[in-house]
Amino acid sequence: MSLNETLLEQKEALLTALAEDQSERLAELLPELRSADLAEIVEDILAEEDDLPIALALLDSLPIERRANVLGYLPGEEQTDVAEAMSDETLLPVLEEMGSDERADLFNLLDEDRREGLLRRMARQEREDLKRLASYEEGTAGAIMTSDYVAIPSGMTVSQAMMRVRQTAPDAETVYQLYIIDPDGRLAGTMSLRQLMVARPGARVDDLMIKDVISISVDEEQEEVARVVARYDLLALPVIDAEARLIGIVTHDDAMDVAESEATEDIHKGMSIGQLEDGVSRVPLWSLYRKRVIWLVLLVFGNLFSGAGIAYFEDTIAAQVALVFFLPLLIGSGGNAGAQAATLMVRGMATGDVGVKDWGKLLGRELLVAGSLGLTMALAVAPIGVLRGGEAVAMVVAMSMVTIVLFGSLLGMCLPFLLDRLGWDPATASAPLVTTLIDASGVLIYFSIATAILAGL
Amino acid sequence: MSLNETLLEQKEALLTALAEDQSERLAELLPELRSADLAEIVEDILAEEDDLPIALALLDSLPIERRANVLGYLPGEEQTDVAEAMSDETLLPVLEEMGSDERADLFNLLDEDRREGLLRRMARQEREDLKRLASYEEGTAGAIMTSDYVAIPSGMTVSQAMMRVRQTAPDAETVYQLYIIDPDGRLAGTMSLRQLMVARPGARVDDLMIKDVISISVDEEQEEVARVVARYDLLALPVIDAEARLIGIVTHDDAMDVAESEATEDIHKGMSIGQLEDGVSRVPLWSLYRKRVIWLVLLVFGNLFSGAGIAYFEDTIAAQVALVFFLPLLIGSGGNAGAQAATLMVRGMATGDVGVKDWGKLLGRELLVAGSLGLTMALAVAPIGVLRGGEAVAMVVAMSMVTIVLFGSLLGMCLPFLLDRLGWDPATASAPLVTTLIDASGVLIYFSIATAILAGL
Repeated sequence: MSLNETLLEQKEALLTALAEDQSERLAELLPELRSADLAEIVEDILAEEDDLPIALALLDSLPIERRANVLGYLPGEEQTDVAEAMSDETLLPVLEEMGSDERADLFNLLDEDRREGLLRRMARQEREDLKRLASYEEGTAGAIMTSDYVAIPSGMTVSQAMMRVRQTAPDAETVYQLYIIDPDGRLAGTMSLRQLMVARPGARVDDLMIKDVISISVDEEQEEVARVVARYDLLALPVIDAEARLIGIVTHDDAMDVAESEATEDIHKGMSIGQLEDGVSRVPLWSLYRKRVIWLVLLVFGNLFSGAGIAYFEDTIAAQVALVFFLPLLIGSGGNAGAQAATLMVRGMATGDVGVKDWGKLLGRELLVAGSLGLTMALAVAPIGVLRGGEAVAMVVAMSMVTIVLFGSLLGMCLPFLLDRLGWDPATASAPLVTTLIDASGVLIYFSIATAILAGL
Repeated sequence: MSLNETLLEQKEALLTALAEDQSERLAELLPELRSADLAEIVEDILAEEDDLPIALALLDSLPIERRANVLGYLPGEEQTDVAEAMSDETLLPVLEEMGSDERADLFNLLDEDRREGLLRRMARQEREDLKRLASYEEGTAGAIMTSDYVAIPSGMTVSQAMMRVRQTAPDAETVYQLYIIDPDGRLAGTMSLRQLMVARPGARVDDLMIKDVISISVDEEQEEVARVVARYDLLALPVIDAEARLIGIVTHDDAMDVAESEATEDIHKGMSIGQLEDGVSRVPLWSLYRKRVIWLVLLVFGNLFSGAGIAYFEDTIAAQVALVFFLPLLIGSGGNAGAQAATLMVRGMATGDVGVKDWGKLLGRELLVAGSLGLTMALAVAPIGVLRGGEAVAMVVAMSMVTIVLFGSLLGMCLPFLLDRLGWDPATASAPLVTTLIDASGVLIYFSIATAILAGL
């Protein structure tokens, strides 16, 4: 991604100041930049100038806390490049300043020798925490949670809890949601800082807290985390282990990032593109090729079935060449209607609007809608059939249109459910797959109807 | 959407208690249910039982604050149905309890007489606030912002500000981000409640606040609001008018809702489906038909160009019927590659990863990737060409494959940028549109190459 003009100017000013070693000018420029923007400038220096030492020098001019923030905003690959170029002595304090979830993510990107070296230099508690967070499987709640939350021991008073919040404030990812923990570490309840602030100082948190807490298991998929956070408008979602012990929280901003990358992934899958590690403008060409080619070549062979169908009906085609005129139209329409139906189902399932057990009801709805769509399109195309090939051809085309659109829509609707049943991601029921399947069936339906009707004349 | 089993049980229990008028049982059941879940039960009663009086009775058994919460979680149509069935006397206190953004949304859904009646019964300040919020155009920051934020007059001390937060706590949408306002109502700075809590009580907020606040204009599109909130990980984004006066905030949960519905809209547009007012399982059949039929019929006529191409090359086809065998394959492959390229660009533009000025650089990348894709697919299909029609046909098919995939990918890549330049939503460059355009061009490319090569033999 190119920088916008403001950022481009700021980047130039920073590079000049760095090159001429003007530390006063740097100290003036840097505080004006937000960490997210600074991260983008660093990314741009790495991409355009390909100058790691300059990027490192820029990071070095920042106070340690901001350095950790900026590093946290960088994409994985750039984060690794920067971290690998730093010595253990420089990297360690930065890691310590990062949020525990970001630290674990970066840690997982480093090679094993480096990880061992860093772990040896850490304090025991930090080491255990990092090892634990880094051990959760990618794509689960555990992998995106942070252990920097405010835990209040059960039994505390409001004023004790308030003191605890003040002490934890610098480190916690959010201080606005408090979690009350029983002596066994189990999540006993939750309350907001807002509730705490308006409460009587002598009251006990146990009497004020909400006991029926929405929480999620550490093994749960991150999509589900994002759905729960959005559904209940949460600031943070507590994550518990099998013994109901609180082991982390997922904050709303991390949930929003998950929701956005899930939507991108679903859109890409919908066009049979594999998962990209980065934005389309930055991902390596070879990777882009690889993610697109597999499905395209598979679909080549899928399309050969359409060819085989055509070969089988060569006599019918030879007898009435006008039929070929309508071939792209008919299979295209079926494919489009089917891809629409599949898209509606896949997105409905992703947002939680459609469940597997709605299948029967939705089938009935789709039958009605697709039938009407097919009839409308048949009416639109029939006059052209009369013009090009006479009434018999018009009848063949109209009947084929209704059948193909109906068949295509039902296939497009059912495929995501079928894939879900088989344990696959419904988003794999992509438009190209549906289109290819319907293309082949469309050829068969069209020429079968044509053979039947035209032979009877 | 069907209820899950827990909710279904809870719904049955509620219906039984209501039917048998067991108010004690109700008072036991209701506090256990979260507002989001209760809203879903109400929605289900309206959809399955079609029983508005029961839904109203259920809402009536709730304390006024929860009634407002549940109403806020209902989708627009159900909200209107419920609100219209309530008398002004019942509705007014509920409206007053709702967040100012939800209140304005609901207000906009009521008919004019009802709105007039309600406004007359309101206190002057509330009336002005509601009229103002309801007046912003749909899809802008103004339409999704709330006016319930914590404003701290410039010059206050930390302890005065803390007092103000405590007073505002019950009404504000979020108390965790504070906005410092100068005497002209302009946004002077911001600070978090966390900062306030750890600050010295006698310090002035003006010395602690961040002056360089990220804010957004009231006319800005809601997509941009969601992007800014996600980019800077904000809890809330302040909204300012043309004079830089603070007039509202958009909270993270509303931004997340926008991001989710924008992603759904883009996915639907990508398959040429109009914007649905509700989830696919609930939207009326007629509406579903209407949103899908327009594009399908348009594409019917688009596909006729492919037919016209075929008619033009009838002689070439008659001379070498084996060519028809490869027709669905070639145009299908071009369509798939083009739809992939369009999808990557559209999503990249939606997430802000790709800008219009990256166009030149991306064109070069796409040329390389699409060229390699075309070559791979040509190699895959060439042997089949030899088998079906000899070496000459294989050559025609391979050359056509490279040309069609290259052309299709470039078209798919450029179309979103072109639409954006014309001021249209790039997501309109949907897969069916790209596919139809490439289908027609593919027919022309294929048979032109065939005519040239086969005539030369």
